Amino acid sequence: MKTQVAIIGAGPSGLLLGQLLHLQGIDTVILEAKSPEYVLSRIRAGVLEQGMVDLLREAKAAERMDREGQVHDGFALSFAGREERIDLKTLSGGKTVMVYGQTEVTRDLMAQREATGGITIYEAQEVTPIDFYGDRPRVSFIKDGKRIELECDYIAGCDGFHGVSRKSVPADAIKTFERVYPFGWLGILSRTKPVSDELIYANHERGFALCSMRSATLSRYYVQCSLDDRVEDWSDERFWNELKSRLPAHTAAALETGPSIEKSIAPLRSFVAEPMQFGRMFLVGDAAHIVPPTGAKGLNLAASDVYTLYHILTRTLKDGRTDLVAKYSEICLRRIWKAERFSWWMTSMLHKFSDDAFNQRMQLAELDYYTGSVAGRTTIAENYVGLPYERID
Amino acid sequence: MKTQVAIIGAGPSGLLLGQLLHLQGIDTVILEAKSPEYVLSRIRAGVLEQGMVDLLREAKAAERMDREGQVHDGFALSFAGREERIDLKTLSGGKTVMVYGQTEVTRDLMAQREATGGITIYEAQEVTPIDFYGDRPRVSFIKDGKRIELECDYIAGCDGFHGVSRKSVPADAIKTFERVYPFGWLGILSRTKPVSDELIYANHERGFALCSMRSATLSRYYVQCSLDDRVEDWSDERFWNELKSRLPAHTAAALETGPSIEKSIAPLRSFVAEPMQFGRMFLVGDAAHIVPPTGAKGLNLAASDVYTLYHILTRTLKDGRTDLVAKYSEICLRRIWKAERFSWWMTSMLHKFSDDAFNQRMQLAELDYYTGSVAGRTTIAENYVGLPYERID
Repeated sequence: MKTQVAIIGAGPSGLLLGQLLHLQGIDTVILEAKSPEYVLSRIRAGVLEQGMVDLLREAKAAERMDREGQVHDGFALSFAGREERIDLKTLSGGKTVMVYGQTEVTRDLMAQREATGGITIYEAQEVTPIDFYGDRPRVSFIKDGKRIELECDYIAGCDGFHGVSRKSVPADAIKTFERVYPFGWLGILSRTKPVSDELIYANHERGFALCSMRSATLSRYYVQCSLDDRVEDWSDERFWNELKSRLPAHTAAALETGPSIEKSIAPLRSFVAEPMQFGRMFLVGDAAHIVPPTGAKGLNLAASDVYTLYHILTRTLKDGRTDLVAKYSEICLRRIWKAERFSWWMTSMLHKFSDDAFNQRMQLAELDYYTGSVAGRTTIAENYVGLPYERID
Repeated sequence: MKTQVAIIGAGPSGLLLGQLLHLQGIDTVILEAKSPEYVLSRIRAGVLEQGMVDLLREAKAAERMDREGQVHDGFALSFAGREERIDLKTLSGGKTVMVYGQTEVTRDLMAQREATGGITIYEAQEVTPIDFYGDRPRVSFIKDGKRIELECDYIAGCDGFHGVSRKSVPADAIKTFERVYPFGWLGILSRTKPVSDELIYANHERGFALCSMRSATLSRYYVQCSLDDRVEDWSDERFWNELKSRLPAHTAAALETGPSIEKSIAPLRSFVAEPMQFGRMFLVGDAAHIVPPTGAKGLNLAASDVYTLYHILTRTLKDGRTDLVAKYSEICLRRIWKAERFSWWMTSMLHKFSDDAFNQRMQLAELDYYTGSVAGRTTIAENYVGLPYERID
């Protein structure tokens, strides 16, 4: 079995990369350990940067997003009983974000891949990248009890934080940076009208809260919780009461509650691996870096890796460029560290870390300064809509 | 003995307040525990915000500063071998800072007070504010062995962090916020040409460094040191070598070294007391708040308290306004918390806190983002030149 680019992982990064390369006439095979149903059952982020929206359009997988997604011109920061709006569009010179669930993005990309005849091998077992430092890299896997070796020119590791790609790299060839936060996010999905047209990120002495949505009738809410908490500890009633207590009074009063249709607890982590290219293998998205969800950067950062790798592979495979592969890490990491910073900063400013009174006042002073200064608001807006992608020349 | 405003402390805050009130025809007496020589021997900050410069001019104590002080249009941030300039003047809409030592400010204000016949009682012992919650506040003290009670309308506590004013407030009437940093600043003064026309704040893996100056021939340099270090541990040679190792190569190469004429270690602290007004007594400057020196806000924050108190006392004593005294804390604290934030942020971004690799990358990402973004540079500039004073209406 042979292809030009072997893609490990059929999440949004792998599928998006596959579609973009396909449109350039480059052949790909995607290997995925799980089933399509499993991949689609993971409920994740839902805020897409302008750059990712443009990339989905380029991949011709944006039709439903453009019809059903909600364009957001701003969001709110709530603290000390106040609610301050960040006018993304005005502050960023016209950029906006698109609210459209990651699950829907994945579903659209899957459909597009099927329509274009791209090969995705689901439930591939023991997927293993081989000889990626040499000239003949392969990916070995077992399908229906048979071991297969997929020969390729390049391997794209789009298989997430727990995936095999990063783990296949010799320990002395990779350096990792990590921060684990002392709390989690308890999230619920409910068929209720969102409390606000725009997202609300709330700093409160009881802990962080986030009011988000998937559509005009589907709400997504989060409250900061203890890492020891279990989902069973949180009845719907307890959740709604806690959420209300962390929002300004007029917002809490307007909150429509209802039974949860999904409820889960996620930990928060910052993680970066350097470099992201190892011979003929590249790491993409969560395989190389994780951000805490505050700031909605995870999926978007994967998209900017895809943008960079797509352009580098196209120039390399179609135009015979030999210098670009070695630049992948450097180009990606410049933007990644900035997004890591923004996510860490938003997380630090909005969550309750301890009872340290000085630290709490610093958070309120940051919120007060940044929302009160045009320059401060602009730093938030330009990061939230996404810093520009770096062109590949 | 009687006056309208009893001022405790003859540092720059007390002297500046005294002069400004004097020019409004309001009588003051300043009580100072130390001698004038002792007061002038304390070497402190040297970067004055535009607002403080204007206030010194209003106090008619700016003649020598305007002649000898250096106007700075910018400063540099150094990190990762790079040196990035913050163009204060362009980014802040024309504002600059003045480099002129705190000792010189104090000397000028002392001379001005003497010239205008203002009373300053030096070496006053056992200074104690009394009955400031009542209508007849007094300050008791011993001079030349005799106990004296100074009757007054108001008391201004300008006596610094260790002064008696804040300590005279009942513990349940005051709340304090504090952060002590796990390092100190080792500073030297030398008769050498400054390595740069502008200040350089350096982030380095060995620790923070600062290149500053008092004049064209007098340099002031600092390196972050351990709190366990003693001045005797640091020979001039060791200091210069350490400083050079923390600067970009071209800067280190240009550094002129020479014998130190002063060498001292200072701890770094963030501290705020709330409120700042207790009946007829006000806390001003370091008596109510301390910032770490990164960002040069300490003296400037004292000046903005003086501005607020000067206007409130003038309106109260001359125009009979009864509503303003109670607003002093609120007005001051809004600006203080923002300056505390900026000082804490600059300190956090520039110093070595630990060997935590993620934290070090966050510092570099912050420096990279903030120096690379116009909005980011503007947030630094507008804070460094000083956020606007709040008008008293």
